[in-house]
Amino acid sequence: MDYAKQFIVTPGSKVDLTKIDAGYKDSHESHEAAMPEIEAYRDKLRDLQFRLYAETKQSLLICLQALDAAGKDGTVNHVLSAMNPQGCRVYGFKQPSAEELAHDFLWRIHKATPAKGEVAIFNRSQYEDVLVVRVHDLVPKSVWSKRYDLINDFERLLVDNGTRVVKFFLHISEDEQLRRFKQRIDDPARNWKISDADYKERSYWADYQKAYQEALSTCSTKHAPWYVIPANHKWFRNLAVSQIIVKTLEAMDPKIPAPTVDLDAIKKQYHAAEVAEEDGKV
Amino acid sequence: MDYAKQFIVTPGSKVDLTKIDAGYKDSHESHEAAMPEIEAYRDKLRDLQFRLYAETKQSLLICLQALDAAGKDGTVNHVLSAMNPQGCRVYGFKQPSAEELAHDFLWRIHKATPAKGEVAIFNRSQYEDVLVVRVHDLVPKSVWSKRYDLINDFERLLVDNGTRVVKFFLHISEDEQLRRFKQRIDDPARNWKISDADYKERSYWADYQKAYQEALSTCSTKHAPWYVIPANHKWFRNLAVSQIIVKTLEAMDPKIPAPTVDLDAIKKQYHAAEVAEEDGKV
Repeated sequence: MDYAKQFIVTPGSKVDLTKIDAGYKDSHESHEAAMPEIEAYRDKLRDLQFRLYAETKQSLLICLQALDAAGKDGTVNHVLSAMNPQGCRVYGFKQPSAEELAHDFLWRIHKATPAKGEVAIFNRSQYEDVLVVRVHDLVPKSVWSKRYDLINDFERLLVDNGTRVVKFFLHISEDEQLRRFKQRIDDPARNWKISDADYKERSYWADYQKAYQEALSTCSTKHAPWYVIPANHKWFRNLAVSQIIVKTLEAMDPKIPAPTVDLDAIKKQYHAAEVAEEDGKV
Repeated sequence: MDYAKQFIVTPGSKVDLTKIDAGYKDSHESHEAAMPEIEAYRDKLRDLQFRLYAETKQSLLICLQALDAAGKDGTVNHVLSAMNPQGCRVYGFKQPSAEELAHDFLWRIHKATPAKGEVAIFNRSQYEDVLVVRVHDLVPKSVWSKRYDLINDFERLLVDNGTRVVKFFLHISEDEQLRRFKQRIDDPARNWKISDADYKERSYWADYQKAYQEALSTCSTKHAPWYVIPANHKWFRNLAVSQIIVKTLEAMDPKIPAPTVDLDAIKKQYHAAEVAEEDGKV
C-alpha cells in the first residue's frame, strides 16, 4: 500500500479526525507479520540517508506532532536508529525559554533547521504555536490566527533552499492514550514521567482535535504536506512513517558524488607498491 | 581486562606513542569471539544512558580525536547507535567559520557542551587548536602554547557543574592508515571522500604524533582523563571505548527519579474502572 497517498492531507481539503481510524493497520495480521517489511524500510532509510549526507546538496526536515503518549519519542527512536547519527539530529521543542519568547515564534525553529546533507527531526515544532498556545489561550486569537500563513511562508523558504519538509500527525484514540498512561504508571522505569497535568490535558481533548484539524487543513501544502498516521499500533505507525520517509528520500534521489581527484593517479603515487603487487609484477 | 586502567594516560606522565601497539587486541581471538562482550556493553550503554536522561542531574562529554581514517565516525556510530537518539548528540568540529574565528577558541566548543541528562560526543574537539593548528602554524606558538592550561581550566568548569569528561585518542599505525585510504579508493560508495590533501597530511605524521603526545601528557587530568585506544582493529576499538564509557557511567550511577505524584491516587481517580476490573470487583 502507498501510505503517502493514503494518509496525505490533500492540500485544500478539510480534515475530520473523527473519520480517521486510529487503530488502522492495513492488511497486516500482526507486528510479527509486518516485521520483514519494517526492516526492509530501515535498510532503505540507512542507504538513502547515507547518500543524502554524501551528496550535501539537499536536506530533509521531519516534523512530528501528537498528543501525549502518541509515540513521538518512539518514532524518533525508530527512524533515527536506522540512520547514521552523524548526519541526523533530533530537536525537542519544549516550553520556550525567556530568550526564545523575546523573539518571534519561528526564531528558535529556524536555528534548528537542517543543513545541506542533514536530516532533522523536530519532536514538536512550529505547530505548537497554533496548538497548545491556541488551546490554552497563551496569546490572543489575533496573534495565533496569523501564524498559519506565516508557517506556510516559512516552510516555503526552506523548501526553496533545497529542504524537503514532511509533517506527521500521530493519531491515537482517547482510550488508547489512557491505556498508555496506565502502562506508564505500572512501569517503574517510566512512572516518574507521570504528572497530574497529563490527565488534566485530556479534558482539552476536543479542543486539541479542533486545533489539529485546522493546522492540518490549513498547512498541508504541496511543498510541505501533512500526513495523518494511525498510531494506536506502534509497529504500524513505524511502518507507515518509515515508508513515507523512504518514498520522500527516493523522490529526492540523492547521489553519491563523483571523486574530485584522479583515483588512478593517487593509486600510482601513493599505493604504487601494492598496485604493482596486485598486478603480479612483484 | 579493565581497559580504563590499562589505557588511561596517568596524569602527570609523559606519553610515548611509539611504545603503544596500535594493533593490540588483548586476548581476543577475533571479532566474532569478542562479539558477545561487545553486545553486552551496548546493552549496558543503552540502560545507563536512559537512566542518565531520566535523572537529569549529570551529563557526559566524550571527546574523540584521531588522525584521518582512524575511526572517529565508526566509533560515533557504534556508541550512539546503542543509545536513544533523544538524549544524545554528536558535534563535528570542522574548520572554524568566520564567526567562530572572531571569538576565542573555546567559544564554539562551549555552546555544544551537554545539558544535564545528555550525552554529547565531540568528533574532533577543543584539541584541534593544539593539534592541526600547531602542526600547520595557524597561530604563533605564543598563542597555542597557552591553550593547554586554558583547556584544563575549561574542562574543570564543566566537571564542577556535573559533566563527566572522557577523551579518547584512537591510535592507528601509519601502515594501517594507508591501507584504509586504499580501501576507500576501491569502494565506490566512499571514493568521493578521497582528496590529495589526505595523503599530503601523512608527511606531517611525526609532527602530529609529537603534538598529540604533548596534548595527551599535559591535558590528561584527574577530572578529565585521556585514554589511548589501540585502533588498528575496529572491533577492539569499539569494545575498549564502550567498556570505558560503561565504567564511567556506572561510576556516575544515575538513578531513575521517584514519581513526583501519588501514583495510587492517580490510578483511583483516572483508572478507577480498570482498577476495579483487575480487582475482580466488576
